[in-house]
Amino acid sequence: MNQPNYYLLTPGPITTSRTVKEAMLNDWGSWDQDFNQVTQTVRDKLLAVANSQDTHVCVPLQGSGTFAVEATLGTLLGPQDKLLVLMNGAYGQRIANICDYLKRPYVCIDTGDYLPPDPNAVAELLRQDASITTVAVVHCETSSGILNPVEAIAEVVNGAGRKLIIDSMSAFGALPADAKKLGYAALISSANKCFEGVPGFGFALIRRDLLEQAKGNAHSLSMDLHDQWAYMEKTGQWRYTPPTHTVAAFAQALREYEEEGDAPARLARYTRNRDQLVAGMRQLGFQTLLEERWLSPVIVTFLSPADPNFDFKRFYQELKQRGFVIYPGKLTQTESFRIGCIGKIDTPEVARLLQAVKDTLIAMEISLS
Amino acid sequence: MNQPNYYLLTPGPITTSRTVKEAMLNDWGSWDQDFNQVTQTVRDKLLAVANSQDTHVCVPLQGSGTFAVEATLGTLLGPQDKLLVLMNGAYGQRIANICDYLKRPYVCIDTGDYLPPDPNAVAELLRQDASITTVAVVHCETSSGILNPVEAIAEVVNGAGRKLIIDSMSAFGALPADAKKLGYAALISSANKCFEGVPGFGFALIRRDLLEQAKGNAHSLSMDLHDQWAYMEKTGQWRYTPPTHTVAAFAQALREYEEEGDAPARLARYTRNRDQLVAGMRQLGFQTLLEERWLSPVIVTFLSPADPNFDFKRFYQELKQRGFVIYPGKLTQTESFRIGCIGKIDTPEVARLLQAVKDTLIAMEISLS
Repeated sequence: MNQPNYYLLTPGPITTSRTVKEAMLNDWGSWDQDFNQVTQTVRDKLLAVANSQDTHVCVPLQGSGTFAVEATLGTLLGPQDKLLVLMNGAYGQRIANICDYLKRPYVCIDTGDYLPPDPNAVAELLRQDASITTVAVVHCETSSGILNPVEAIAEVVNGAGRKLIIDSMSAFGALPADAKKLGYAALISSANKCFEGVPGFGFALIRRDLLEQAKGNAHSLSMDLHDQWAYMEKTGQWRYTPPTHTVAAFAQALREYEEEGDAPARLARYTRNRDQLVAGMRQLGFQTLLEERWLSPVIVTFLSPADPNFDFKRFYQELKQRGFVIYPGKLTQTESFRIGCIGKIDTPEVARLLQAVKDTLIAMEISLS
Repeated sequence: MNQPNYYLLTPGPITTSRTVKEAMLNDWGSWDQDFNQVTQTVRDKLLAVANSQDTHVCVPLQGSGTFAVEATLGTLLGPQDKLLVLMNGAYGQRIANICDYLKRPYVCIDTGDYLPPDPNAVAELLRQDASITTVAVVHCETSSGILNPVEAIAEVVNGAGRKLIIDSMSAFGALPADAKKLGYAALISSANKCFEGVPGFGFALIRRDLLEQAKGNAHSLSMDLHDQWAYMEKTGQWRYTPPTHTVAAFAQALREYEEEGDAPARLARYTRNRDQLVAGMRQLGFQTLLEERWLSPVIVTFLSPADPNFDFKRFYQELKQRGFVIYPGKLTQTESFRIGCIGKIDTPEVARLLQAVKDTLIAMEISLS
């Protein structure tokens, strides 16, 4: 087994600080008051980041982010509900797939591989179809790296008196997600994205009044967020064994998050990473998939060069040997690859990455400019 | 936040070795070949422990052990199935609760707080009710600490041509669970019990032919073990973000497991821990709930002393201050508490625990003998 020795430039799991990982060097009793305090601190802080302390509750859930998305949909959507899914990539598709399992009715507005949803089209469909009660949108669709216009979508959805669920997996913690401004019913994210924790749990910020009404909706015991929340409120404990070490690491990650200056500081660093990355890659001759205004500070899709010597697997391995793990593309139509801007990386690491890309191009005898 | 500095004498999360925890000091790319190899090694080893390489497949699942139990039931039980749940504590009850969510028909044989299921009663019910296709039993019911007679149950269930699902959460890895001898359809366990890893995922060993037939059964996307398995076979990757650090820690735990001498060595150590614990506690005047032959080497329930000075909360805190975290009781009728025998503990730690109990009794002015 090779111990990894590289930076992860992916949409998560991401590179975490040494001190976050060192927070896993203790065993915690999942029933003990010490651990309950860690959980409570984490839940309070997440609500505060979203300015949602007085309206929402934070319900963490064991498993990956997808588990938290499914649990939120399964818990909040009742038999009378119908969901509109705004789809422009794999994560929107996954929400629709979850509805198939849940046997809940839904419709989609699918704008394909990388175009943003159009708020006017959403408004129009909500006018036409009064049975739609809820709209789901992916904040940053990492399939392409697009930052979807959640503010404009929220305005339309709230204006039409419908509920909004935001999958903010790779965005929350850096991108603005103010509950007062966006008025969402629920916002979902996970430990191992912009908060720079390690993977093992996700969480949802859910409007308290809606969660209170959601008892009995859930399709799954493990994913019943009403039950998870009610138990946690009563006992301070997770309903089933939590990933204790991961939660302790997350508490440390939140301390480092505060020390850095909360969401504004993190957004500034990720934006800096992206700008340096995009400028440097363009200088080397690469093109971004998206035009400027849709580029997220989370992950950027680059088009694979037409040069016949370019082979993603080799490109990946060469970069890995130089200390950087990147991500394959996820587009159906175009050859591409992705490089993440999030995680415990900053200007010096991006500079070293760009040098590694340059050296790799030479090693692969690819000439782009 | 208090950093814990105690041994966990609970049914999990348990005390893990320093080296297991240190295996979490790296960030792994969940898409990378290095990590895929870790996953594959873990899956292969778990099959080998159960002597099930040629009949079963190992499907890991993010989340707690309960997630894996629910996923196994949800994936394996089809619309034509009916489950018999052998119930003698909280974990049997949880299986029934899962069936409520799944809307799958089930019947129970409930032997109450701490009596083992009677194989003859199971045989009789299977004769009477031909619609029962599957039987679920908890290997070690940690509510009371009872070790259920899975061998005798397996003989009856297999003899009646029904399928057996064993929730072996706190037993697998130490107690015998040979697939050839027990002939189970599925056996479920988790990372943070007898294998002495940290919590974050569970796994099921499922008969390959049954899993192949189970496509389309699952009630949940995240818990669809057919889909999880098919994706893993195809790509080597977990379907959704795995708890990478937890999996790496588990791989290290498995190396230490092999070094110790696999299941026989672990069972011997846990049995030694239990015998020393029970003898020492009896010498101090405590009584076990169960008679000798049902005492598991996993966790032991002790009756709370009648002495009016005994108060569990204080007892717990006194022991915690002395470096040991124990577990509350879970009986409906009797005041009790539980002490675990599993985890990275051995004779010297049990001796120190017994001394701590003795000192605590003095501090609480409790006289038992």
